[in-house]
Amino acid sequence: MKTVFTERHYLRNSKTELYGGTLVRPFECPERIEFITAELDKRGLGDYVEPADYGMDPVLAIHDAGFVDFLSKAWQLWADSGYKGEAIPTVWPSRSLSVDRIPKQIDGLLGYYALAGETSISEGSWEAALASKDVALTAADLVMNGDRAAFALCRPPGHHASTSQFGGYCFLNNAAIAANHMRGKGAAKVAILDVDFHHGNGTQEIFYNRDDVLFVSLHGDPVDAFPHFLGYADETGAGAGEGFTANFPLPVAAPYEVWGAALDEGLKRIADFGADALVVSLGVDTFEKDPISFFKLRSQDFTDYGGRIAGANLPTLFVMEGGYAVEEIGINTVNVLDGFEAAAG
Amino acid sequence: MKTVFTERHYLRNSKTELYGGTLVRPFECPERIEFITAELDKRGLGDYVEPADYGMDPVLAIHDAGFVDFLSKAWQLWADSGYKGEAIPTVWPSRSLSVDRIPKQIDGLLGYYALAGETSISEGSWEAALASKDVALTAADLVMNGDRAAFALCRPPGHHASTSQFGGYCFLNNAAIAANHMRGKGAAKVAILDVDFHHGNGTQEIFYNRDDVLFVSLHGDPVDAFPHFLGYADETGAGAGEGFTANFPLPVAAPYEVWGAALDEGLKRIADFGADALVVSLGVDTFEKDPISFFKLRSQDFTDYGGRIAGANLPTLFVMEGGYAVEEIGINTVNVLDGFEAAAG
Ligand SMILES: [Zn+2]
Ligand SMILES: [Zn+2]
Repeated sequence: MKTVFTERHYLRNSKTELYGGTLVRPFECPERIEFITAELDKRGLGDYVEPADYGMDPVLAIHDAGFVDFLSKAWQLWADSGYKGEAIPTVWPSRSLSVDRIPKQIDGLLGYYALAGETSISEGSWEAALASKDVALTAADLVMNGDRAAFALCRPPGHHASTSQFGGYCFLNNAAIAANHMRGKGAAKVAILDVDFHHGNGTQEIFYNRDDVLFVSLHGDPVDAFPHFLGYADETGAGAGEGFTANFPLPVAAPYEVWGAALDEGLKRIADFGADALVVSLGVDTFEKDPISFFKLRSQDFTDYGGRIAGANLPTLFVMEGGYAVEEIGINTVNVLDGFEAAAG
Repeated sequence: MKTVFTERHYLRNSKTELYGGTLVRPFECPERIEFITAELDKRGLGDYVEPADYGMDPVLAIHDAGFVDFLSKAWQLWADSGYKGEAIPTVWPSRSLSVDRIPKQIDGLLGYYALAGETSISEGSWEAALASKDVALTAADLVMNGDRAAFALCRPPGHHASTSQFGGYCFLNNAAIAANHMRGKGAAKVAILDVDFHHGNGTQEIFYNRDDVLFVSLHGDPVDAFPHFLGYADETGAGAGEGFTANFPLPVAAPYEVWGAALDEGLKRIADFGADALVVSLGVDTFEKDPISFFKLRSQDFTDYGGRIAGANLPTLFVMEGGYAVEEIGINTVNVLDGFEAAAG
């Protein structure tokens, strides 16, 4: 399978992440991609494609225009304010405040458009986010044009980004933008399978009222894990989308047996849905050594579940999401692709 | 007038404030109180009273029990988690997420109960917050027992704390707790005049549906100033409380002429209301040299407006809120009290 990739991901290189009351170097760092391409090369799978420029229409089909405008100018507004650090929100429209006021000052705007505070906005972040959605769209077209599968090596990741908020290292929701694009290219029904350790809250929120995109997510129970406020089992969609969201929150220290059983359930939901295409939000932070997650998958488990995903027999777009055990991220990610290809034949 | 004061405010001494994408020493620091007591002493006004212990009933009459329980154990939960810094929220229930889930893990709990991120929870913060509400309650009783006025030298401040959220350097809403206590002690109507630079969002939220407590606030327009998401002129109360909230958002660089005109309007609202007692949320961050605010009051203006407040002819409780130009905080605060006493005769 081809990998869509661009070096423009390096433009996202913030220096600070708010973590445990301190500012640390972000877990979501450029080396993540280097380890993945190194492993692709090592296994002879490095068939790279540069992304095409899809412009803003596919983005604006998913995201709020005010949010997109904000992201495009946030760094400049922040830099102009004279602050010394990177842009981190300090106040937000929570339940004690009103949710529908859009302030003018940068701290207010930042809080309005943020759902989390670990994701500092730095110079170049927006340009990298734009490149990342083009990576996803280019790979989506490979699949829509007949490839059995494609790998969108997106960075920054996307699944936490909602219609109008960034956070969780995500700015634009690459998987959602790609899935919607695939709908427009002839897939009547698209399923999104989110196997990242964290709940794909942004993707869920974006498609919550739609019946043409099924969202299935396996993740750390939000009672214990980021993003904490979405991803519960009783969230099943709303309106026309009722029944088209399926969450599998799993407990602390869940081993592969538990995770794999949930995967099989999720794949059954996808089969019952009758999807024409599959988008996999591929985070490998389910790995036992991941520094910010709590599942117990071993490297060989990634190979195994890649094979199970191939069993869905659908044109499949893999979109890179999280994974922070940097030295093993290449092995685990490519194991999924390898396992898929071996089973897809 | 007597000043209620306790050295237990020193227990609130956090090391970090998230500001401009960096961690700085908090603007809300213990020296603020030292400069105020020094000025009181210098002018021979230091008639100090130690706070009595009022227990939790007056707190639970205002704040959510789950919030109070969280505050009482937050530092221990955080310390037990092994994080290296002070407790700062990184994810919160915003409009893209659900607002009614209460997670178990400390980052989730912290985000659930926070409305802002600059207020690190540190060891001792809760004990200082408890002492601070007792300072306000003790001073409230001085007024209810016949003193023309009293000064509650509260620290930490309170007016940003809502029913169930902390932030803006505030944990418990001292002014709201005191106003409600005065209601129970025989004042049929209590007016709260919030002259801090920032909107008293917590106080507004707490009394928004009540017609027995009038809330009047003069503050930096939230379009430009913290807390950004409350304090707009069209917020006037709800239900029985409709018409009992009055906001005067004022523009960047507002001079005393503009501010004083709004004060006179606010005092007229209080007179029309027919209050039996007045609580002044006294922040002096309206000062021209305040490092985080944008009004242009000079030191002599504080004396002047103290006199105007005395003109309301009401038993008056001053509750200390903000003010971050530390070297002048004593002069400006005591100028208000002096101006009041000179006019009250
Ligand atoms: Zn993740
Ligand atoms: Zn203030």
